[in-house]
Amino acid sequence: MAADRKKLAERLRLYLICGEGDSPEAVIKKAAAAIEGGVTAVQLRVKSWTGRECYDTALALKKICSAHGALLLINDRLDIALAAGADGVHLGQKDLPVGAARRLAGTDFIIGGTARTPELAREAQQLGADYVGCGAAFETATKGDAVVIGPDGIKKVLSAIDIPSVAIGGIELGNVKYLAGCGASGISLSGAIMRADDPKKAATALIKEAGRVLGG
Amino acid sequence: MAADRKKLAERLRLYLICGEGDSPEAVIKKAAAAIEGGVTAVQLRVKSWTGRECYDTALALKKICSAHGALLLINDRLDIALAAGADGVHLGQKDLPVGAARRLAGTDFIIGGTARTPELAREAQQLGADYVGCGAAFETATKGDAVVIGPDGIKKVLSAIDIPSVAIGGIELGNVKYLAGCGASGISLSGAIMRADDPKKAATALIKEAGRVLGG
Repeated sequence: MAADRKKLAERLRLYLICGEGDSPEAVIKKAAAAIEGGVTAVQLRVKSWTGRECYDTALALKKICSAHGALLLINDRLDIALAAGADGVHLGQKDLPVGAARRLAGTDFIIGGTARTPELAREAQQLGADYVGCGAAFETATKGDAVVIGPDGIKKVLSAIDIPSVAIGGIELGNVKYLAGCGASGISLSGAIMRADDPKKAATALIKEAGRVLGG
Repeated sequence: MAADRKKLAERLRLYLICGEGDSPEAVIKKAAAAIEGGVTAVQLRVKSWTGRECYDTALALKKICSAHGALLLINDRLDIALAAGADGVHLGQKDLPVGAARRLAGTDFIIGGTARTPELAREAQQLGADYVGCGAAFETATKGDAVVIGPDGIKKVLSAIDIPSVAIGGIELGNVKYLAGCGASGISLSGAIMRADDPKKAATALIKEAGRVLGG
């Protein structure tokens, strides 16, 4: 693995998805606590907010992420990611295509893709994705329509590519252990931190468990 | 008025807003007919579609617009506007700020702002907007929450700026005449074309009426 890929893989270790279901203020507060606790990357994912709310929140998160060396990624909205100085964009299969985003954003910008089959993973890598999110690992309440492929399915998908990756879908402290050997660089989750009584404490426990299970 | 402003003003004469309430296929079909009928600018405005649907539809509209010399603008999504090769982006007060969009898009890209007060209109121009949409001119079913300022209100707002503009809000064939002397370069509407039995015929009647009322 190239040096920059190794570095990116490390920064994806504990990847928090936040936004939906919280107000901008709550997102900023909880994400800040979670970053203090050990979150290494934050993705702002808001389909129902206005562009202005997303942009303003991205600016606030950027300051916090930069101060702690955490990555900031924006879901779907490449324009907001670029305008707010985020590190990258995360693109699902229903978002702007990875190739179109790469042409706009240039090379020094992280683009994440989404894949639940080896074919989609290879395609994402070929189109220029720097990492993929792969799942669903487990049943999830956050995205009810997600197809569960499980840790074995994730292993199969990730064996088709050599870029970094995060496992996603229903991940919480108690099931991280089942991801051992699946090949993911990190774990991506929302509820286990954003719905925790203490997001900082939750993040601290999760980063420790991710390190133990995924190695490094 | 500078030569490029005069040219833009002419291209804003009959400005169709389309997207919401129609499928991508219906948008493309109706917009194509409307452009044949005389529409000079098309804005794709979709808050509930996925990024991919918006991008694919923008690509299809771009081909049609280019073939007929009509402008293509995308509402809010600057990334999709740039990726699809649209002529510009239209930004409401709840969208990405005009200044942020200008920094990203550079100078050769049309940015439209929205204003219902002289102060907001001046601000939009100062931040780099090439034109403003101003209204609501009349009661409208499409945007139920819009504040109606009427033709006189529009005249007041537009007297504060010297960039091109479109009047917007509840405009249909029967009320264009009340916009005489309001200072708008063009009329912007959705339902009067997208809900018409014959969008092409509706556009032809509207462009004729807009020419008669707004002059030029």
